[in-house]
Amino acid sequence: MRIGIYGYGNLGRGVEKGLALNPDLELVGVFTRRDPASVKTVSGAPVYAAEQAESFVGQIDVMILCGGSATDLPEMTPALARLFNVVDSFDTHARIPEHFDAVDRAAFQTGHTALISGGWDPGLFSLARLYMSAVLPDGKDYTFWGRGVSQGHSDAIRRIPGVKDARQYTVPIAEAVEQVRAGKQPELSTREKHLRECFVVAEEGADRALIEKTIREMPNYFADYDTTVTFITEEELKRDHSALPHGGQVIRSGKTSEENRHILEFSLKLDSNPEFTGSVLLACARAVGKMHVRGIFGCRTMFDVAPADLSPLSPEELRKKLL
Amino acid sequence: MRIGIYGYGNLGRGVEKGLALNPDLELVGVFTRRDPASVKTVSGAPVYAAEQAESFVGQIDVMILCGGSATDLPEMTPALARLFNVVDSFDTHARIPEHFDAVDRAAFQTGHTALISGGWDPGLFSLARLYMSAVLPDGKDYTFWGRGVSQGHSDAIRRIPGVKDARQYTVPIAEAVEQVRAGKQPELSTREKHLRECFVVAEEGADRALIEKTIREMPNYFADYDTTVTFITEEELKRDHSALPHGGQVIRSGKTSEENRHILEFSLKLDSNPEFTGSVLLACARAVGKMHVRGIFGCRTMFDVAPADLSPLSPEELRKKLL
Repeated sequence: MRIGIYGYGNLGRGVEKGLALNPDLELVGVFTRRDPASVKTVSGAPVYAAEQAESFVGQIDVMILCGGSATDLPEMTPALARLFNVVDSFDTHARIPEHFDAVDRAAFQTGHTALISGGWDPGLFSLARLYMSAVLPDGKDYTFWGRGVSQGHSDAIRRIPGVKDARQYTVPIAEAVEQVRAGKQPELSTREKHLRECFVVAEEGADRALIEKTIREMPNYFADYDTTVTFITEEELKRDHSALPHGGQVIRSGKTSEENRHILEFSLKLDSNPEFTGSVLLACARAVGKMHVRGIFGCRTMFDVAPADLSPLSPEELRKKLL
Repeated sequence: MRIGIYGYGNLGRGVEKGLALNPDLELVGVFTRRDPASVKTVSGAPVYAAEQAESFVGQIDVMILCGGSATDLPEMTPALARLFNVVDSFDTHARIPEHFDAVDRAAFQTGHTALISGGWDPGLFSLARLYMSAVLPDGKDYTFWGRGVSQGHSDAIRRIPGVKDARQYTVPIAEAVEQVRAGKQPELSTREKHLRECFVVAEEGADRALIEKTIREMPNYFADYDTTVTFITEEELKRDHSALPHGGQVIRSGKTSEENRHILEFSLKLDSNPEFTGSVLLACARAVGKMHVRGIFGCRTMFDVAPADLSPLSPEELRKKLL
């Protein structure tokens, strides 16, 4: 199956690295909105300008779109779905229905297959929530994220005047996780589930007290959380906070009768969020390619993909080896 | 959707209890090979003789087969798949390919939809192994079972002369689980993964030393494990060991690049194995009913079921609430 990577930041590089581990998938090239001459790929794969993508119609089976959810993907995915089968990792939960509709229309009209919101949340964690609620309907589930770097929150801090660089970790509160894991079904406020740790490099002479106050009071991002702010040097940031770990867990507890309670948990501990997300997108691309061959057009999510389609193994091998 | 339960032991009762929690599923009746007059259902649902099942063609959308894997299901599932859409929990891993073929033929020829090997292992644990290997191809996974009651091993002990009753617990070895959870990918022998705890009620005057020796040396069942044997009274067995808890975890660790390792885990802690398995079979029955309406005939496993089909929610609701 011939794969293209459209957008070459952390996620695009993650997809590229994952390709080496999937011998049935082959990288045709990387498409960038930057000057292609300025971009060097990890694997040495060729780099093309984004505008050249159209000339690759017929040479790429699935294009993996590695733009951001805020502004890139709402435009990019429907546009590319008119030319290619596509996969994206759109993760603005509230806007998924409208994104789905736009991509579905574009893909269906042109006979393409698209999958949006691939990755781990949305993605594997969504699947965990779906499977768990289907098999244990009388229950309650909880999702915890972290300890891991939130790029969105890190960016929000960087936009504060006087901030040179920043890294924000989302941290699940251990007591909350333990209560849920014990099957207690507590009511937890936002503040009781996660806390936020911020590491900030201030510009010389900046008002650190004001920066800290601005972070702590920032609506949506920090105001509803217990937030710690630690000022560090640029060298410390580089040395101690350059990785992008993440993870978390989905836990559901519930009953099948008065006497019998069950606890289900799916957890991830990831050294590199973009590499793991990229690896999930490759499995999604494989499924999209298979569905396309079967004549399934329009938009899908991981909810609609038969698990077998994500694997390079045949149905017979899967039943024999993994069932 | 109208459901029938065929076979009424622990699992059949588990399915019946689960039906109360799934308002879109309705129980038509229970079919038993015993005298129907001797069987009282938990919910008061009517009981019919197994031979009467054929007269319910057209009145039952999916029949859930609750027989045992050793001798019942290899005959029962293909036979019933000629009359109904069916779901079973066939769990003899080595014989799944031949069972699949027999059921596929019967269901396909008669325009029915069948799902075999539903439950949690095979079932949810199989799905965990499949998803995890698809999204993290360079890795290794481990399945641990327990602490929980193994019916097969309990039965094997009961067949020893001088044994009145017995309960066997499969227990994962904590150090092995911790090594795997730490991403170490150890090579583990059978003995290093699980131990077996046996609680035995001996007949009066039986040779306990011989019973213990017979258990410990039983090939396939116990010889490859560290096994403890504890003799208890009938009252103690009843008081302390009448529940059927189970559970375990699937853990996969692997890499996406030299630097970055990831650890994925899916775990279950179940108060009642048959009630939870029954609850999973109901979700499978829902999916079978939906696939049948779409004209998908023949045999499937949970590997082939789009997760959305297991849920009572619509695709739109799922995307909005769970993605």
